[in-house]
Parts: sequence; structure tokens; C-alpha cells
Amino acid sequence: MSNNFARRAELVKASEVRELLKLTDVNEIISFGGGLPAEETFPVEEMREICNEILSENGAKAMQYAISEGHIGLRQIIVRLMGEKGIIAGVDDILITSGSQQGLDLSGKVFLDEGDVVLCESPTYLSAINAFKPFYPKFVEVEMDEDGLIPEELQKKIIENRNIKFLYTIPDYQNPTGRQMSLERRKAIVDLANQYDIIIIEDNPYSELCFSDNKLPPLKSFDTEGRVVYLSTFSKTVCPGYRVGWVSASPEIINKYILFKQGTDLHTNFFAQMQIASFFEKYDIKKHIERNISIYKSRRNAMLETMKKTFPKEVSFTKPNGGLFLWVTLPEYMNSKDLLLKAMKKGVAFVQGSAFFPNGGHENTMRLNFSGLTEEKIIGGIEILGELLREEVRNSKINVQII
Amino acid sequence: MSNNFARRAELVKASEVRELLKLTDVNEIISFGGGLPAEETFPVEEMREICNEILSENGAKAMQYAISEGHIGLRQIIVRLMGEKGIIAGVDDILITSGSQQGLDLSGKVFLDEGDVVLCESPTYLSAINAFKPFYPKFVEVEMDEDGLIPEELQKKIIENRNIKFLYTIPDYQNPTGRQMSLERRKAIVDLANQYDIIIIEDNPYSELCFSDNKLPPLKSFDTEGRVVYLSTFSKTVCPGYRVGWVSASPEIINKYILFKQGTDLHTNFFAQMQIASFFEKYDIKKHIERNISIYKSRRNAMLETMKKTFPKEVSFTKPNGGLFLWVTLPEYMNSKDLLLKAMKKGVAFVQGSAFFPNGGHENTMRLNFSGLTEEKIIGGIEILGELLREEVRNSKINVQII
Repeated sequence: MSNNFARRAELVKASEVRELLKLTDVNEIISFGGGLPAEETFPVEEMREICNEILSENGAKAMQYAISEGHIGLRQIIVRLMGEKGIIAGVDDILITSGSQQGLDLSGKVFLDEGDVVLCESPTYLSAINAFKPFYPKFVEVEMDEDGLIPEELQKKIIENRNIKFLYTIPDYQNPTGRQMSLERRKAIVDLANQYDIIIIEDNPYSELCFSDNKLPPLKSFDTEGRVVYLSTFSKTVCPGYRVGWVSASPEIINKYILFKQGTDLHTNFFAQMQIASFFEKYDIKKHIERNISIYKSRRNAMLETMKKTFPKEVSFTKPNGGLFLWVTLPEYMNSKDLLLKAMKKGVAFVQGSAFFPNGGHENTMRLNFSGLTEEKIIGGIEILGELLREEVRNSKINVQII
Repeated sequence: MSNNFARRAELVKASEVRELLKLTDVNEIISFGGGLPAEETFPVEEMREICNEILSENGAKAMQYAISEGHIGLRQIIVRLMGEKGIIAGVDDILITSGSQQGLDLSGKVFLDEGDVVLCESPTYLSAINAFKPFYPKFVEVEMDEDGLIPEELQKKIIENRNIKFLYTIPDYQNPTGRQMSLERRKAIVDLANQYDIIIIEDNPYSELCFSDNKLPPLKSFDTEGRVVYLSTFSKTVCPGYRVGWVSASPEIINKYILFKQGTDLHTNFFAQMQIASFFEKYDIKKHIERNISIYKSRRNAMLETMKKTFPKEVSFTKPNGGLFLWVTLPEYMNSKDLLLKAMKKGVAFVQGSAFFPNGGHENTMRLNFSGLTEEKIIGGIEILGELLREEVRNSKINVQII
């Protein structure tokens, strides 16, 4: 029997993060591979009360079909949240999605025809690559540094390429690097988008998880032409298992998202939308997020301090001021795939950095997650990695002497 | 500013059902337009207890990221449910989806390249058309009669067309016609698929809602070659607001669905999956469904009896033995769009039948839903429609006399 799959069925590969997640279910591995928020941050008891109340008073509504746009009360809350960030939007400019991931799938549907160019940071979010790939785009990577995407590099790539559909960017504590785009660059990049008539897909799941005083306004807040599509989620502020996120865009654009949402899953779980809306209405979300931040900040500190102590000086890494991830660059001669195999034998896992480059390469990089493990496990795991890395560096020097 | 949408953004139109749904929120209209299950059938009190238990004992798991394949306990329940229908599958052959609608979107992703042929019943499910359209297929409609899709017509269309990717069929109480495919035809159609090496997407959301003794096995139960992809949902047996459905297919095929699921929304709301699994474990689902059936059967009876009394003999309609819908064929000279405008002025809505034909036409048809309204409202609404139809027939005869 021939299966006759679409061409795209050959393009999308199993996510190594997910495959690792499966592994970590069965083995006693310290995994820096996933991107799991800390379970301690989930408002379990609050949700128990909220569920009880919704199902006592409003159960049939929670269980019935609902409009694709999403729960009106939740959209009003999002209007307020975005207003605090300087984004002016109305409830009709917002579509509730099944996680921010669905915002990416819908972005592909709305904008991408075969051969269209997607500009993105180099590296970029692995599952964004997989969300866009089914629509056969060409990925053009734009260089970044500690201050995020470099506007001059972006302009160069814009000039060099045709059929550019959008720039995909994660300005805050980017997945995978943990980098935060500077204020000047945010403005410069919106200016470039205006100048060259380009759409920006701004993916902003981590902005609330800010460990410093340097909270920056989203690119969307500088958008005067309705060309920035803003994606975010409750996965990092409430919990990811509910799969509730949102898209905000100009009326003309959001209407296309809504139409494709209908064909994709009709609407997002309505009970979950009601629960999150109720959580924001009844509880002090700022205090809740502050508590989350203090947990993540301690874990980041534990990771960075252990890395400084145990990683050889040949290995460099980012020092994120927020989010869930940091990024490690190994000496050119090292391969993170080989390292991963060795590390897993010693009970430690991470994600190879090459997975985050849509056009491949960069085998000497890796992503580490610091949100999902206790400080004790982080310290233990990083010490194992450090020992392994020192050994690798030592061996390479011996090899050089032998040659 | 140019928006640079993908070509597909022009193909997908607002669902008139959904737009009507919005209308019915604000007006006091009797709408036969939606496809809402009866709220009385939702196990609200049971779910209140279940939520309380899950969040007391297992809250963090309900709120955390989970594997794309879905909750293992729920997949075991599905294995059992399908086993009762004669489908032999293991948990690894099942993917939990965000409603059966997502199964359609993923089917498009897995199989359809531009220009590929989708064979479907004429008429077929409106939101399946919208789910497949983004992948630019060509729809080839196959004639049906009271016993469902006609195998001889299917064979003719198979021979006439190239690049056929799959047959999409709803064998039980089809949306929109309410027709049930006969046993002989089920076997004959699987035989044709084997003979011509074609995949079948069997969409089976309504099979549990059977009002007669004539429950028939799914096409998938006759599949000896792993070429039937089976889609179903808990929307009609538990509730639709949770958006939990599933796909079952051979290992090679289901693995492609899982990969695309990851890029689409990572996984389906995990708390909802746990709730449904717990509902099946703790309660007598057969008794629950029997109660649902008795409600729907009474409503169907109320609709059919009032139609027999009030519709003019020039109007014909199906008499479904299950599901949520029936199908009305008006005299050729009537246009259901004109009729809808007139009906809405009198406080009644339905969906124009033409929306269910991917290649258009059939302006003299309409779909009526009998599940979402009380018997009283059904009788009242059908009487208004009947009066309007008699008036239309009368007017046409006067016009003929004048000419």
C-alpha cells in the first residue's frame, strides 16, 4: 500500500526535545532538555476552587461549543494586560488560541505560500520552525548578539531577498538563547518593517518572567501601521497544560486568523478559558508572577554559579535576565551531539543547539533549561556536565600534543 | 501597507453557521442553524466532582506540559471503545486531538499537496471543506442517496481522476444529511479503496447517537490494509466545549499525524483529557449515552412530525435514525438564501444547503439541526417555516397562472 503523504510529511522531523521528554519519563535522568515551567508555580488549589464555582454556577456554558474568537471576559483581561505594556487593542483585535504554538501554525496559514521567505533570529524557536515548515517557506536567518537581532544584519537580509512574508522574532529572553532585545533595536526593527513593508510576528511568551528592572515594551507597542502580530500565552504565567494563548493583530489581519482558527479546531477549550479568566479576576496575578520569578531567578542563579565554577574557560554561555533558557557555545571542535550521548550515559540531558537553526549547522551549541528542576538537581547536573566538558577540553589538548 | 496574505487567505470564507451562532447570541431567534448538543446532556455535576478530585490529588500533572500523543489512560479507554466497534488498535495507534476538527486539519497536513483530489460525499461537512481548503486540493463530489455514498459513483470518479489522495466520508448520520451508509456499501467502499489504493478518512462523530437497532460497524473495522484513518470525538458523548477527539490509524500514518500535531498546538488540554478519562472510569457511559439518545430522539420526532404536518408536499426531507441533523430539499425554483432572509424576519434560522457543496450549487437545499432546541421551540420554529414554505409554493403557483 502506498501512503501518498504530502511532500511536507518528509520535512517535519520528531522534536528532539519531545523525544527527550519521553525518555525522561522512564529514566532517572537530570534533563535540561525540556522547557517545563516549575510545577510549584501552578495555582492548583486556586483552580480547584475556581472549577468548583464554574461547574456549580455555569457548567453548561463551560462545556458547550463557543465562538472561535474566545471568551469575552478573558479577552478583556488580555486587553488590560497588553495595555500595561503599551499596546492599544480592543477585544475584537484578539483571538484566543490553543497555546501560543497555535498562533504560529495560524501565522503560517495566513501568510505563507511555497517559497515565501521567513526572516528569523539565528538561532530561533525549534517549534516555530516546525510550525512554519508545512507551508514550504524559505528560512533566512539573521544574526544576533547579546542585544538580540542586529538591525543592520536584518536590513542586509531584507535587501538580499524577495518574497519576504514576515520577520519572526522573540524579543524577550528568547528561546533558545535567553537574550533580550534592546530598546533601541526594538524601535529600529519596527522602523525597518515600516520602511520595507514587512509584517512582524512578535512571539512574546516569556516577557512576564523578568528577573531585572529592565522590563522593555514589546515591538507591538511601537507599531503605528498595524503590521505587528503579537502572540502570547498563559503557559508561563498560569500553566501550560491548559493550552491557552492569544494572538493580537489589526482587524484585517485578525479576521484571517479567526477564519483559519475555525477550520483548525473550531475554538479553544472553553472551560479552560473561563478558569483562567476567573483566576485573573479573583487573585493577585502580580503577586503570583513575582513568586514564580523568585523561583526561576534562584534556579538561574544556581545554574550560572555552578557553570562559572565548573565549566572550562573555553566554553561560553549567555546570562539571561529572564525566561527559562540559556545558551552554551562550545569550542568549535566539539560536537554537542557527541557530548549529549556521553552526558546521557552519566544521567544528564540537554538539547543540541543545531536543532534551533532552520538551515542547520552550529553543531557546537546547546540549550539548557533552568526552570523545570530543583536547585539541587541543577547543581548536580551542571557539575556532571562541567566535568565532562573539562575532560573534553583536556582530551583535545592531548590530541593536539600528540599531533 | 500591503498585508501579503497567502493565497489561501482568499479561499476560506466565514462559516455561515458560525456567523449565525453569533446572531443567535443577541437575538431571540429559533436557530436550527448550529450543531449544538443539548446542554441537558452535559455531565456537569459529575465533572465538578472529578475536577475536585483531580486537582486535589494530581493537580500539577493536569497543568503541566504533556506528550503530544495524549493521556495514556484516555487512549486505553479509546482502544476499548473502538474494540467494541470491531476496530483492533493499540494505544500507540491513537493520537488525542483538539476535537475531531483538528483531525481534519492534520489530515490535510499529512496528505494534501496543491491540486490533489479529495473525494467526498455530495454534500459534505462544511468545516471539513474549510479544514482541507488551506492545502489547495480539488474537491470531487460523489453522489449519495438514502443509503449514503454510492459505490458505483465512487468508482466512476476514481477512474475519472488522477492524484486522488483520500476519500473523506461520514458514514453515520452524516452532517449535513443525517444519512447512514448501509452495511453492504461500507464493505464495497473499503474494497474499492483496496482495489485502487486509496486512503479513507472516516469521520465518525455521531455513531453513538443511534436511535434505532441498526448500529453498523465503521469502515475501519473492515480495513485489512491499514488504509482507513478513523476520526472521532467526545463532543457528542460527553461535551464539545472541552475540544477532545482522536485519530486512529496504522503506525506509519499515525506517526505523521503526531509530528504535525506537535507543530500545531504541542498537545491537547491535558486537564480536559484527564477529566474525560475519569468520567469513563467512574460512571456508566452507556447509561449516559442512552439518556442523551432519548432526548435527541424525542427532538427528532418532534421535528419530523411537525414537518409532516406543516411542510407542503413539494418539499422533501431525510428521516435520520441518529445524529443531530436532517436535510431538506425544496422545489428547484426555491432558493434557500431568500428563504433564510424571510425566515429570519419571522424569527427562525437554518443553514443554506449550498454551503455543504465544496463546488457550490444546490441552492434549493437546507440543513436543520434538531439537537440544540427544546421540543416546544422545535415545533414552534418548524410551524413558522412550514407556513413560509406553503406561502412560497402558493406564490409560485399564482405566478405560473399569471404567466
